[in-house]
Amino acid sequence: MSEAIETLEGWYALHDFRRMDWNAWKEASPEERKRAEDELRSFIGEWATIEDNKEGSTALYSIVGQKADILFMQLRETLEELNDLETAFNKSAFAKYTIPVYSYVSVVELSSYMAKPGSDPMENPEVVARLKPTLPKAKHICFYPMNKRREGGDNWYMLDLDSRKAMMRSHGMIGRSYAGKVKQIITGSVGFDLWEWGVTLFADDALQFKKLVYEMRFDEVSARFGEFGDFYVGNLLDNDRLGRLLDV
Amino acid sequence: MSEAIETLEGWYALHDFRRMDWNAWKEASPEERKRAEDELRSFIGEWATIEDNKEGSTALYSIVGQKADILFMQLRETLEELNDLETAFNKSAFAKYTIPVYSYVSVVELSSYMAKPGSDPMENPEVVARLKPTLPKAKHICFYPMNKRREGGDNWYMLDLDSRKAMMRSHGMIGRSYAGKVKQIITGSVGFDLWEWGVTLFADDALQFKKLVYEMRFDEVSARFGEFGDFYVGNLLDNDRLGRLLDV
Amino acid sequence: MSEAIETLEGWYALHDFRRMDWNAWKEASPEERKRAEDELRSFIGEWATIEDNKEGSTALYSIVGQKADILFMQLRETLEELNDLETAFNKSAFAKYTIPVYSYVSVVELSSYMAKPGSDPMENPEVVARLKPTLPKAKHICFYPMNKRREGGDNWYMLDLDSRKAMMRSHGMIGRSYAGKVKQIITGSVGFDLWEWGVTLFADDALQFKKLVYEMRFDEVSARFGEFGDFYVGNLLDNDRLGRLLDV
Amino acid sequence: MSEAIETLEGWYALHDFRRMDWNAWKEASPEERKRAEDELRSFIGEWATIEDNKEGSTALYSIVGQKADILFMQLRETLEELNDLETAFNKSAFAKYTIPVYSYVSVVELSSYMAKPGSDPMENPEVVARLKPTLPKAKHICFYPMNKRREGGDNWYMLDLDSRKAMMRSHGMIGRSYAGKVKQIITGSVGFDLWEWGVTLFADDALQFKKLVYEMRFDEVSARFGEFGDFYVGNLLDNDRLGRLLDV
Amino acid sequence: MSEAIETLEGWYALHDFRRMDWNAWKEASPEERKRAEDELRSFIGEWATIEDNKEGSTALYSIVGQKADILFMQLRETLEELNDLETAFNKSAFAKYTIPVYSYVSVVELSSYMAKPGSDPMENPEVVARLKPTLPKAKHICFYPMNKRREGGDNWYMLDLDSRKAMMRSHGMIGRSYAGKVKQIITGSVGFDLWEWGVTLFADDALQFKKLVYEMRFDEVSARFGEFGDFYVGNLLDNDRLGRLLDV
Repeated sequence: MSEAIETLEGWYALHDFRRMDWNAWKEASPEERKRAEDELRSFIGEWATIEDNKEGSTALYSIVGQKADILFMQLRETLEELNDLETAFNKSAFAKYTIPVYSYVSVVELSSYMAKPGSDPMENPEVVARLKPTLPKAKHICFYPMNKRREGGDNWYMLDLDSRKAMMRSHGMIGRSYAGKVKQIITGSVGFDLWEWGVTLFADDALQFKKLVYEMRFDEVSARFGEFGDFYVGNLLDNDRLGRLLDV
Repeated sequence: MSEAIETLEGWYALHDFRRMDWNAWKEASPEERKRAEDELRSFIGEWATIEDNKEGSTALYSIVGQKADILFMQLRETLEELNDLETAFNKSAFAKYTIPVYSYVSVVELSSYMAKPGSDPMENPEVVARLKPTLPKAKHICFYPMNKRREGGDNWYMLDLDSRKAMMRSHGMIGRSYAGKVKQIITGSVGFDLWEWGVTLFADDALQFKKLVYEMRFDEVSARFGEFGDFYVGNLLDNDRLGRLLDV
Repeated sequence: MSEAIETLEGWYALHDFRRMDWNAWKEASPEERKRAEDELRSFIGEWATIEDNKEGSTALYSIVGQKADILFMQLRETLEELNDLETAFNKSAFAKYTIPVYSYVSVVELSSYMAKPGSDPMENPEVVARLKPTLPKAKHICFYPMNKRREGGDNWYMLDLDSRKAMMRSHGMIGRSYAGKVKQIITGSVGFDLWEWGVTLFADDALQFKKLVYEMRFDEVSARFGEFGDFYVGNLLDNDRLGRLLDV
Repeated sequence: MSEAIETLEGWYALHDFRRMDWNAWKEASPEERKRAEDELRSFIGEWATIEDNKEGSTALYSIVGQKADILFMQLRETLEELNDLETAFNKSAFAKYTIPVYSYVSVVELSSYMAKPGSDPMENPEVVARLKPTLPKAKHICFYPMNKRREGGDNWYMLDLDSRKAMMRSHGMIGRSYAGKVKQIITGSVGFDLWEWGVTLFADDALQFKKLVYEMRFDEVSARFGEFGDFYVGNLLDNDRLGRLLDV
Repeated sequence: MSEAIETLEGWYALHDFRRMDWNAWKEASPEERKRAEDELRSFIGEWATIEDNKEGSTALYSIVGQKADILFMQLRETLEELNDLETAFNKSAFAKYTIPVYSYVSVVELSSYMAKPGSDPMENPEVVARLKPTLPKAKHICFYPMNKRREGGDNWYMLDLDSRKAMMRSHGMIGRSYAGKVKQIITGSVGFDLWEWGVTLFADDALQFKKLVYEMRFDEVSARFGEFGDFYVGNLLDNDRLGRLLDV
């Protein structure tokens, strides 16, 4: 029998992808659009206050291609808070002009594959900070969900702990070589959503997403055991870009 | 030839997931919304009476993320009753503001993998109570459908009964270690719906869903033989939260 | 080289699953609804005449869950007749309030796996009756499509005829043990629809669907070679239940 | 390294499947319906002229079940012509009452698996005629797309040419045994659409589709290497049946 | 452990597939259609200027079959530019008459499988030109996404570098034999979209797409390791053909 690795969990995460209903947006009156945009900006202000208070964090990005126009990534202390904020958004004047296209529910997770034996990770303030992170304001975001494979000879969950540790360590080494270039947040979704993990990457140079994911794909843990969902890539929606996005 | 394990069945189950049509809800007049909400609360009252009479049970949860806004989980004595209640709901003023997104038909099931040889499980009042349960009012719910795999060397249905028993026993041990933290209701759907089983979990701490499902995934019966559908996680919709959900 | 088993074919079959457009139905005027329901009942009357004349057969069931509200199962002598009746239905006032969600085209089939060598099955009046059956008015229906697997070591179509015969015989034994409880109609859809066969079961106790399909799943022919589509389960729509379904 | 077999290509093919929007059709005024039907019949007339001029061919069938109501199968000399005719149709008054549900782009193809060594197939007038065929007006049509499998030990494209030739020859023998009963047109879609080939069968007795495809399924080339998409079966839409289809 | 091959990246790519909403287009007034078409042509003019300035490139093709009517293929220096141009298009009067059906995000990529050891590819002006290409105005386009397989014994990412190099070299030889007939642009989408690569082919004779892809399929790298998405094939939309497409 295999053995589960211990995991640490922090804030719950909701990735909420929306398309704009451009026809409806263009047909709305300028007053109506202003009211909707004001309401959205008011939400953004509230989320910023929550972030300032270290009670959660929010990232707002536009997505390239038809899959979505806007990604709201939200971290909060509880599932109820995530539920409340999505419902509040759904009732807003702005939501009327958006079409929900994809969402993902998970929780910030650190696995202890690389923990030093004997140490209590929760005594490490850096670990605690990583479990309840303030999301970076990098220029670009990349999100994808993934599983560890369980097929025939390639069954991650049937491997012994040492093999998994060795592979995860090698995997982590690649990740570290991108330090300063790519910031990675792993969220676990076993029991919460379709895949086992969500990976959210932040970088100022979008090409680093490709370099990192491609290099990792040759690593045994990805090559043999990684199963990947769809990838979403986008650009930071700061105040200025948001204004330009919505201006018609 | 392999050998089927005997199963015991209780109430039929319908999991009915709905999205709110928020645009229509917001555009309805306050009177219309009141009428719709009153009708919904009247249904909820009827369902509570049925539950009090031990003729069925109902759980009402909001779902996190875009997959659904509301889950109605219904247990009843017959398929006709489930059919009648969903039709009655569909004809209601409230249903007009909901969009059906997913449903699942199954029946509460206990397998006899862990039964004591020689005993008649139906003489056990605890068993009977588990077949016709009153659904918990825990803070959180988790639902997912699953199959036992039948692929190449990993074919559950080709294993002999003893191997299956041993694996199910180990599996059950993990489940038991979550006693008091997670309440689990297994419903069988062979012949009724796309997957072979539905698993519905209840907990006051949603993180326990993740802990439980993740720990089980390393158990051979899940690692080699478990195939999982989508996961839905949600928050209890008591009177108060329902009012807040619908208030615009 | 493997060898195809001979099959016998009878009436063509169309399974036509529809959702009610409840919003439109509720918004229609009582006169409009009456006209639509009258037209539907007039079709039902025509279909009953065809059934009385042994020129076809019709089964009408409501489906539990969101997948569909009504299943029209039609058996007719030719594909043209099936096409004509679905087109006639589509043009009806009632069809306007339904949404097509799934259909299946096949033909009643008997395979000769269990035929006595030397006998001509078409000389057997019971065989002929089974090829052009009058559909039972059982309380419940279950429909699912299926394939025989062709994957690696589990390739049904690469087995020799004797192995297939032996497995089908064992399979048939399980089916026979449900005689009087479950009535089974096999329709072949190779060349006609997505799966190779459709299985339609009728029973007064819906639990017998689960018992039968689950027991068969441990049989080698299902365990190793069965691939199953979605399952639909429903309740007989007699005049009374139809009236109640449509009454708003 | 394996070796590609040479193929010969003729006319490009577009299979264009449409559902009728019955609600819109019924709500249109009789004049509007007449105008739309006249326009459709005018197209049909133009297509017949093209067929008479040996510049292409057209088949018009109704499809049984909900997948589609009408199939337009078009053969033309160039992709531009196919594109132009679909665009012309899309702009017509009749198209307004149809919903595109599926299409397939391919080119009539003959493989040289069964060619006599040393002969130039293009000098064979029969071969040339088969590459630019006039589509039969048989009572029934059957269409399905397919691939040759490339999985583990069952990888068609890794087989040597002689093995493939032997299997295709056996396959062709079955096809020939249906001569006079089923007419088969193979179109290649590598580089053009989702599957590698489209198979279009014509027969006056629809049961022969089932017999042929089922018998072939036991042939090694299908049993081990055939992957099949969805099957569509239909009835010839001659002038009379078209009139009855559209009459409301 | 396997070893990633180095890749070079140039312009980012957006393939944007749209269906025309023919009903809306036909119902618009001639003035409205003229305004929309003028706006589209104004975009096309801007894109041509960008192409003249070597700051990007644009290809405009009609797609055969129902999958799409128009493909806009855009190459730009940054993801922000791609995002801005799709948003600008979405806000246009013309976009109102289109329905987004599929898009793909990637970046022009050259792998160094065939690089001469010791040389710096970025010193090669031909390489640089291929990374920021002006898209051909060939009569036909073909687009498909693809993966390298990672399954059991056929796991590309577990092969050593030399094996991969040898296979890619053989693969490249086939490609070269189509020089002058087919122009190929490879874009990488690891980290950006659902598949690992997008392949865009240009040719004046569409049959060459089929010949090339089919011949490659017998090459070990495709036969064992190629996984392909859907294929789209189309015709150049020059000013004249665009006018005819939109003329009603």
